[in-house]
Amino acid sequence: MTEQVTEKKPEQNKPDHIAELVNASVAVLKEKNKDALITLLETHHESDIAEMIALLNGSQREQFFKLIGEDLAPSVLAELDDHSQAWIAERLDPEFLASALQELETDDAVFVLGELDDDDQKEVLEFFPEGERIVLQRSLDYPDESAGRLMQSDVVAVPPFWTVGQVIDYLRVTEDLPDDFLEIFVVDPTHTPLGMVKLNKVMRSGRPTLMQEILDDNFTPISAELDREDMARMFERYNLVSAPVVDEDNRLVGVITADDVFEVITEEAEEDILRLGGVGDETVGDDMFRAMRGRFSWLLVNLLTAILASIVIGLFDGTIEQMVALAILMPIVASMGGNAATQTLTITVRALATRELLAINTLRVIGREMGIGLLNGILFAVLLGITGWVWFGSEMLGLVLAMAMIVNMFVAGLAGILVPIWLNKAGIDPAIASGVFVTTITDIVGFLAFLGFATLFLI
Amino acid sequence: MTEQVTEKKPEQNKPDHIAELVNASVAVLKEKNKDALITLLETHHESDIAEMIALLNGSQREQFFKLIGEDLAPSVLAELDDHSQAWIAERLDPEFLASALQELETDDAVFVLGELDDDDQKEVLEFFPEGERIVLQRSLDYPDESAGRLMQSDVVAVPPFWTVGQVIDYLRVTEDLPDDFLEIFVVDPTHTPLGMVKLNKVMRSGRPTLMQEILDDNFTPISAELDREDMARMFERYNLVSAPVVDEDNRLVGVITADDVFEVITEEAEEDILRLGGVGDETVGDDMFRAMRGRFSWLLVNLLTAILASIVIGLFDGTIEQMVALAILMPIVASMGGNAATQTLTITVRALATRELLAINTLRVIGREMGIGLLNGILFAVLLGITGWVWFGSEMLGLVLAMAMIVNMFVAGLAGILVPIWLNKAGIDPAIASGVFVTTITDIVGFLAFLGFATLFLI
Repeated sequence: MTEQVTEKKPEQNKPDHIAELVNASVAVLKEKNKDALITLLETHHESDIAEMIALLNGSQREQFFKLIGEDLAPSVLAELDDHSQAWIAERLDPEFLASALQELETDDAVFVLGELDDDDQKEVLEFFPEGERIVLQRSLDYPDESAGRLMQSDVVAVPPFWTVGQVIDYLRVTEDLPDDFLEIFVVDPTHTPLGMVKLNKVMRSGRPTLMQEILDDNFTPISAELDREDMARMFERYNLVSAPVVDEDNRLVGVITADDVFEVITEEAEEDILRLGGVGDETVGDDMFRAMRGRFSWLLVNLLTAILASIVIGLFDGTIEQMVALAILMPIVASMGGNAATQTLTITVRALATRELLAINTLRVIGREMGIGLLNGILFAVLLGITGWVWFGSEMLGLVLAMAMIVNMFVAGLAGILVPIWLNKAGIDPAIASGVFVTTITDIVGFLAFLGFATLFLI
Repeated sequence: MTEQVTEKKPEQNKPDHIAELVNASVAVLKEKNKDALITLLETHHESDIAEMIALLNGSQREQFFKLIGEDLAPSVLAELDDHSQAWIAERLDPEFLASALQELETDDAVFVLGELDDDDQKEVLEFFPEGERIVLQRSLDYPDESAGRLMQSDVVAVPPFWTVGQVIDYLRVTEDLPDDFLEIFVVDPTHTPLGMVKLNKVMRSGRPTLMQEILDDNFTPISAELDREDMARMFERYNLVSAPVVDEDNRLVGVITADDVFEVITEEAEEDILRLGGVGDETVGDDMFRAMRGRFSWLLVNLLTAILASIVIGLFDGTIEQMVALAILMPIVASMGGNAATQTLTITVRALATRELLAINTLRVIGREMGIGLLNGILFAVLLGITGWVWFGSEMLGLVLAMAMIVNMFVAGLAGILVPIWLNKAGIDPAIASGVFVTTITDIVGFLAFLGFATLFLI
């Protein structure tokens, strides 16, 4: 036992640890020393190896794969990010990939298979024994982002009339059990779950106790079709460590454990962050041209809305010609509105995503945003009005600035909450589209209000 | 058993379900019918009740609390958000609060106590029996955002020479076990963990098997001092369902389970989203004035930077006077730079937060951003150059626009990555501060390049 202590031990989260692993790997790759590479990898956790692979550049990754070939541990495959996984899977022989996947738990195998294109997936599945193929196929038939795709299909299920003693004996003699499980499911003859019994409860009960006496029927069955985001929210809300997955006929088809849920929570929050920032699903690992294309389309939309705002300015070219101070000050009004609107829409998008904004409190929250917009509008109107007055020595210019500020901040608050709510109702992800709409509104309203008031009162 | 089936059953995640609960509660509150309220709450999960309380408005909450008083289930306390928890805790009698907290698991009790101010905390702790007080105090002494604050202090630990049979007998006869546990820890006489044995492994092993024969020493001890964000990342990276917590002398002091980690992951991602959006730690539940104050300070910083940009424009007032087209077009250059920079900094802030951006790949990623900035700069220079040329009939104006665009998009890419990296090195959270710096840079460079080139080539 003791000689294993330092082996494959996960490290406390030190970036240095991964950096060291990358450096060591690169050194070994230069020497083309396969044995040294295998020895190096054997002392590291599969998650760390996967992260190391993601950090290699293109040619290093090519060298790594050439050297390690089919000696890469199957468990590493399941830990790789999508890009690296697809990259490696297409370089592996389908028969070898199939045999590697058979060493994994079903949820990990389904994860890897799900990233392959349809033809490759079919080809690899051909090499599985029929029973396993059917189990995997059933998971793969569920929609891409559903609970059915994340579940582990192997569960321990017993009838309600078994005793604790029978269950323990069954576990001791049965070879074909899942590698790890946290509960015993109690099912009826149609495989409908009647309840679950956590292992600690089984162990605390005497051998003659019937499973139906100790089962917890207050469990949370998850439909295999359920979207993974809703599933994650159930785990979070009800503090679940595991939950049974049932098919449309309410039959037990698998189990989801908490460790499957972490990634979902992270990825869904990540998605919102990146979409709000206008970068879709990019990661730092993406190559330059892929990243550029993704950003280009977003910037193109922004160019069109910026031109729209400029057309609005163009309506007032005569006014600006008479008073250049307007050109100098107008970006302030637009920028303040844009920032205030971004604040409101960030809060709104998150509240929609976490289901904190419901029909029951929508009106109250809209009222709050109008209030904040108006109050901050008045405060900044005073600040900016005085600034404009002092700077250009015209109290009327200060007044025009102040009025435009109040209008734009109020509109910013209103647009910042109404646009995401409206997009959400229309079935469009508010994280991806709200920003353009809202800042276009505040730019246009900002320029229109400021230059409009200026034309009325100054010229 | 069967009559309990519909009771307290967590619902599949339907916002309607919560809305219905809120409506039902409000109706019962109007009637001031305490029994009806208790009956209503009894059929709902504590998490749903907590969410319902968060959705009530001020006066409804006041009524709710007046009616339910000390009959509120202690488990609801642990599920409330910070605001509601503090609100309710300060209305409860310390002695009652202490007795309610004794019904909770230690981690939940610590969570509620941690939200009280120091005096209240001390007062409540006085009412605990000494043994429990010491255990809770030990958790509370760990830093606010540490693993020690989240851990459950009650664990099952046995010596290595115990047999599986002894462990099972011990579990069957011991009254004072944690409500729920997933593993048996094996410890030496100093209470240093030697390893852990998952319950399913205990159950699969014969009664004479020694615990030291089946223990997994490849476990992941978490230091009680570890920041909860790093702790969450370990759970995520190594797919943990639970992990032992050790003190500075490496003695076992508690256990963290996956359900404690969900909230950490969500809150940390949430924090980044809100900070990037310039709204600190606000939620839709905050009152208007609190929210306004938080946003005001951020907008004030933005006002100062916007004025800075305006001062730059002011340097070119003579140029603008001669050619109003410049005033019309200049916001486009600044806005495109701002958006391109936001894309880059969003990617960078996330990569820093998820530790995907390490010393090993920083140079490569900076190079990538410079490339994207330059390429997108050239593409948009062509698009905008032609637009300006056609719109105002001046090819020189188009050329000036194009040159300014390339410069600003390149600077945007560079600033978008260098500023967050530099803030991160300086120990400042890049999510909170990058935006201001970066958009100030792109505004100033955008106006300077466009108006500067215009002064050189057009006037």
